[in-house]
Formats: sequence, structure tokens, C-alpha cells
Amino acid sequence: MARIVMKFGGTSVADIARIRNVARHVKREVDAGHEVAVVVSAMAGKTNELVGWVHDAGKAEGSNLNIYDAREYDAVVASGEQVTSGLLAIVLQAMGIHARSWQGWQIPIRTDNAHGAARIQEIDGSFLIKRFQEGQVAVIAGFQGLAPDNRLSTLGRGGSDTSAVAIAAAVKADRCDIYTDVDGVYTTDPRIEPKARRLPKVSFEEMLEMASLGAKVLQVRSVELAMVHKVRTFVRSSFDDPDAPGMSDLLNPPGTLICDEDEIVEQQVVTGIAYAKDEAQISLRRVADRPGVAAGIFGPLAEANINVDMIVQNISEDGKSTDMTFTVPSGDVAKALAVLERIRPEVGFDVLQHDDGMSKVSVIGIGMRSHAGVAATAFQALADKAINIRAITTSEIKISILIDGPYTELAVRTLHSVYGLDKH
Amino acid sequence: MARIVMKFGGTSVADIARIRNVARHVKREVDAGHEVAVVVSAMAGKTNELVGWVHDAGKAEGSNLNIYDAREYDAVVASGEQVTSGLLAIVLQAMGIHARSWQGWQIPIRTDNAHGAARIQEIDGSFLIKRFQEGQVAVIAGFQGLAPDNRLSTLGRGGSDTSAVAIAAAVKADRCDIYTDVDGVYTTDPRIEPKARRLPKVSFEEMLEMASLGAKVLQVRSVELAMVHKVRTFVRSSFDDPDAPGMSDLLNPPGTLICDEDEIVEQQVVTGIAYAKDEAQISLRRVADRPGVAAGIFGPLAEANINVDMIVQNISEDGKSTDMTFTVPSGDVAKALAVLERIRPEVGFDVLQHDDGMSKVSVIGIGMRSHAGVAATAFQALADKAINIRAITTSEIKISILIDGPYTELAVRTLHSVYGLDKH
Repeated sequence: MARIVMKFGGTSVADIARIRNVARHVKREVDAGHEVAVVVSAMAGKTNELVGWVHDAGKAEGSNLNIYDAREYDAVVASGEQVTSGLLAIVLQAMGIHARSWQGWQIPIRTDNAHGAARIQEIDGSFLIKRFQEGQVAVIAGFQGLAPDNRLSTLGRGGSDTSAVAIAAAVKADRCDIYTDVDGVYTTDPRIEPKARRLPKVSFEEMLEMASLGAKVLQVRSVELAMVHKVRTFVRSSFDDPDAPGMSDLLNPPGTLICDEDEIVEQQVVTGIAYAKDEAQISLRRVADRPGVAAGIFGPLAEANINVDMIVQNISEDGKSTDMTFTVPSGDVAKALAVLERIRPEVGFDVLQHDDGMSKVSVIGIGMRSHAGVAATAFQALADKAINIRAITTSEIKISILIDGPYTELAVRTLHSVYGLDKH
Repeated sequence: MARIVMKFGGTSVADIARIRNVARHVKREVDAGHEVAVVVSAMAGKTNELVGWVHDAGKAEGSNLNIYDAREYDAVVASGEQVTSGLLAIVLQAMGIHARSWQGWQIPIRTDNAHGAARIQEIDGSFLIKRFQEGQVAVIAGFQGLAPDNRLSTLGRGGSDTSAVAIAAAVKADRCDIYTDVDGVYTTDPRIEPKARRLPKVSFEEMLEMASLGAKVLQVRSVELAMVHKVRTFVRSSFDDPDAPGMSDLLNPPGTLICDEDEIVEQQVVTGIAYAKDEAQISLRRVADRPGVAAGIFGPLAEANINVDMIVQNISEDGKSTDMTFTVPSGDVAKALAVLERIRPEVGFDVLQHDDGMSKVSVIGIGMRSHAGVAATAFQALADKAINIRAITTSEIKISILIDGPYTELAVRTLHSVYGLDKH
């Protein structure tokens, strides 16, 4: 017997027929003798509808200004998960399972006061453990909690993943199963490289790099939380046949386990190749080289809510000043240039260059910490295909390379192959 | 300065444009210096959608049986009012009004444990009075409360009227304004008698008779509650121009005030003519006349959920037994006859007759308590039009007459005229 938290996203509960399918997944685990708690998102499209109403309501008449109170946003938007939790409880009951819906305020799932993007602060697991002891399947509304002001709070988009992991940590679950519309984490995007393989296991650190790089299987915050509390998190598909053989296998059901690196016995040097398109490169030439100059540049950009990614600093041709190059999402280029022109008198630089249509390709693997030459292999492989490297940044478990956009697919396939990821 | 509770039904908050119109009504009262709390229903159609999902979810696979837990029904269905309360709060804020949404569980509005048809047990007014003192407009989700099991409860369809009246009682409001899609209570149905006049005032007792007779302006329970707590309740239209002259008049805004009879100075003998179509008359002839026979008939009918209305008992032609005549809604006739055939051996009666297509016409007026001859006037007026009377029942403030359906309109107009209701 194990204790399992199962989480189902919006597409998995989009209508009653799909909720019934979800219930079969739950029933399977219950029938296998496990203690089960379920976390659900709102029905697909519901949250967008509710958010649309909030935006519309917040428009002052005769104005395009859109102001609304985050507390009221939360009251409206949290209703989506409330509905799904009740409906799934009813479907489970109709299947003869002892189930009951619970809202964030009832358990309670305590959050901070940051309405609209709250962080979970405390879940007393004893409430849910009591439900397990009663043989009850608790069906919990994800994405929401109770703020210190005794009002509903929501965790920000995708927050149901975070709810599930936090609940799994609170009840010391053996596993947190995230059911989604993909069946696991792959060595790279299968749409680009059909030889991409599903990873049976991936470490928290690697998953963090993949998630933040746009492999949008799991919310970044939920992976951080899983890492801190060592919650074994399993990514699997809700569209798999609930009653197929092996689905209740405790150790090795179909999907990808995100876990501590200690649990991954045969660690690959490189685990996966991620990419992010539509990057833009901005370069400042001959920046006066004095302390605080980086803060002087990136502070104002952050204030303008521009997400700066790769940063490369190098000495200028003249040997007396510095060159500063960084990337931003293409959509933010105009805004970034405006900010830079504004601060130019203060910062002092000579030339402002920018290039659109870049891509960032990343090689990720916890094994590269103990293996030299991983980066060199990537550079050589790209050079062999005549792919020009615009910038490089590295971390302990990741090498990111900026290239021209049209080469993205070629670069991904090349790197996927050179590290042997297409071989079983 | 007065303290006013304003309630808006589903058609009044059907979309953001209408919610904006509702907000203008609220703003008008706030600008007039009143303390205002608002109670809202779910957007029109929302509750039906949610109930539909619940029914669908409760269907066991391969079965038409429809079983669902009332606690989960409540969790799902209460979300409708939650959404509207948040949206109205946002719209009010966008108009510069200090507003905040509140759910039943936050105030709390305590109910009993009868999920799906709960009754309000206690509202501590101090929470809302504190909001008044802060200059806040509390926007309260109607139709719901917190049950002793710490779960959401709902009051049954139309329960938002009851919420509003209960809240008005708890905060000792000067008035509870029920905004609906009609502009008040009329002397009779204006679709039948164009000369029908809007009543400026009507007593609680009269309103109770009118509501239960199908003048569906207000939920019967809300009128009962208003009567017990002497809540002055004002029925008015949310589709009136919010800023028309007189709309903020404290004593005499356009609409109908439902109040204690003491407040109605010039009491008419007859206040209104109500009617209910599609009644059926069932007669049992020569029922053995012994104690307990009525219970033996109406007990089983009640158990079968058949709503028996007018009951007339008379001695039979043979002088030794009794005739029992009563009415049921036409739709229930088949079910009623089946029940009666089943109990016939036990009860013992000779002939079972039934007639469909009857109507009940009622003359209502608190003044008839002190005026003789009101009934005789009705009978004579109907006789003059050759309208046959099938059965009569009377109470202190009401005379109900069963007639053949095709004469309904003629009877209503005749009675409306004979009591002078069409004259100003």
C-alpha cells in the first residue's frame, strides 16, 4: 500500500466524459489498495472565461484602462476548481468510491496575502491523513488557498501542479502523479526529432532547467517545491487507458519520474536538449567599464518587466571599455531599446545593436558536472554543420548556445544525436 | 441616511453590461448617503448549467439512475453566486465605490445541514455592520451559507431572495429592495387585464397568498421571513433607469412595498386577483365516513409527492357516507389516480371521478376579515357571466374558486372589476 496524490489538469477534466475517465484512473489506484488524494484544475477554458469576465468588469466606462482588485479576481477565478472538485467527487461516488470534495479554505491550504500569485505557506497534513484513515478519497480544488485575510487566494496560472506537490509533501506521499496531455518528459521535442525518447527518470535539477527552458510539462515552481521536499513526482498521461496493464505499477508505471539524482542509477552525461525560439540579441558596445554598470543596465530593464536571459560581458576592441550582450524575448525588443536609449546618457555606451530571430539551444545533464568535454563536443558538432554560435552561457548542468533561428531544428537534432540520446 | 439591502436576480446580472447597470443602481443609493449591502444571484442560466453537470456526473455508467450527494451539489452550484459577487465588486470599484465581495462561509451565514435546501439559522449582523462603518459596500453571494459540517450549503432555488431578507433582518435594515424583471406587484396579471394597477403597498399576508398562488415575484420563504422579522421589502425593477427621478426616494420609490398591514393606511377590502391554471379536480364518492379517512387518503398522496390543494368534504347523496373532492396540478393526475386505486381497498370508496383543465381564481385582501359579503359578491359576479363554480375554499383573507379553464380570463377580469381594482 502506498500513499499517492494524483493531479489532473484542465484538458483532463474538460467535460463530464473526461471527468469519468479521470475517475477510472482514481478507481484503479483505490482498487490497488492505495491511499489516494486527488487535485484538480478547472475545466479547460473555464479559467480563461472567468479571467475574461474579470478583465471586462474592471474596465472603467469610456476607458480602456483595466483595473481590478486581485482579491476579487481570486474570488471569481477560484470558482473553476471548486466546480471540478465537486463534479469529480460525484462521479467517483457514482462508481461506488467514498469521495468528498474539499476547497482550499476548508483544509485549509494557507497561503500568503499575494492575491493572484499567492505562495503556499502551510498545509497541515493531518486533515487529509484523517481522510485517508476514513478510507475517503479527498478531491481537492487545486490552484487555490486561504490567505491570512480569510479570503480565497490563487497561486497563479498552472498553480494546480504546485498545489499537488505541496499536498504530497504535507501528507508525505510516496508519489505525486501529475496527469497531463503528454505521457512524460522526452530527451527533446518529438515534433523536431522523432527519435526523441521518453526518459524513465529525470532529476529535479534537470527538470528545472527543462521547465524554465520551455518544456512546459510542469510549472517551474512545482518542480522547485518537489526538489526542496524531495517529492517523487511522476508525469504521465491522463489519456492512457486507465485499465491498461502496468498502469498501477508502483515503481515503474508508464511516464517519467522526476526524483532526486541519487535515485537515478545509470546517470547519462546528457539527459536532454531543450530550445527556446524567438529570442533577440542586444549588444551595447564600449560601455564605460566601472563598478555598478551592470546594475545600471539590468535594473531598469527588470523594472520594465523585461525578462533578460543570457548575459555575456567581454572587453571591447579598444581594450579600455566593455561590451555587454544579452538576450530578451523578441516581443520585448522595442520596449528594451526604449529603456536603453533612456538610460544611455547615464550609463554611457557607443553603439546599440540588436538582432531578432535568434534561438537558444540547451544541452542539459546532471552528469556533465563530472564529465569534461561536454561543451566542446557541442561546439564541434554545431561547427560541423556550419551553424554559427552567437553567444554561450554555461551552468553546472547546462550549456546554452544562441544561434540563428532557422538553424534551430538542425541544431537540436545534431546535439540529440551527438550525445547518443536517440539510442536505447 | 438609511440602511438598505439591495438584491439582484439572475436576469439582472446576466452579463457584464447588466452588472454595470446594477452597479449604477448601487451607486445611486451610495451617493444618496445610504449604507448599502448587496445580495446577488448567479448569472442567468449559470445555475441551470451547473445543475445539469451535477445531474450528468451523478449518472452511473450504463444506467439512467441519477444519484448525487447534496453536499457536492452545493459545492458545485454555489460557485455561480461566488462569481457574480466578485464581478460586481470589481465593477463597483471601477466606478470608484469601496466594495468587497463576501461569500456565505466568510460572514458566515449559518444554515442547517439540509444540503440543497438548507434553511438559514443565524446571521450575526455585526460583521456586515462593521463593513457599513468602514464605508464599504458588501457584495454578498446569495443562495448560500455555511452548514454545521463546515461545508457550503445552498438554500434551494430562488433562495437569494431569502438571503437578502435574512441579511436585512440581521443588520436591521430600513428596507430590503428586491430588484427583479417586473416593476412591482399588480392587482392582477396585466397580460390578462390591461387595467391592472401596480399596488404601492401590500401586506405580508396578502403577498404570501399571492406568491403561493403563482404570482412569482418573490419566493414564498422570503415573504414568510420578512413577515416574521417585519422586514420592509420593496419589489422594483432593475431595468428602470437607475438615475431616473425619484429612484432614490426613501419612502416612495417606484415599485411595491411589502410591509406590515399597520403601515397600510387606506386598506382596500380586496387587494388582488390571483389565478392558477392547469388544475385537475378529483372526486371520491361515497367514502366510508370514519375517523382517519382523510389521513388515509392524503397521506399516501403526500408520500407520492403530489401537491394537493383545495380540499372539499361533503356528505354523500346517500346521507351515510362522505364525498371527498380535491385538486392537484394536471400533470399529477395519472400519478394521483394510481395511488388512489392502490389504496381503494383499504379506504373504501365507490366512484373515482376526475376532471382536467380547471383553473383556480382567488380573491385576496386583508380587508375582507372585517367586511362581510366579499364572497357573495364574487359568486354573484361569476354567476352573472354564467361561469360555473366547481368548488370553493376560503381562508381569512382569501376566497378561492375552482372554475372551468376556458373561463379563467373572463373570471379574472370580472372579479378585478367588481371589486373596483381597475379604478384609481
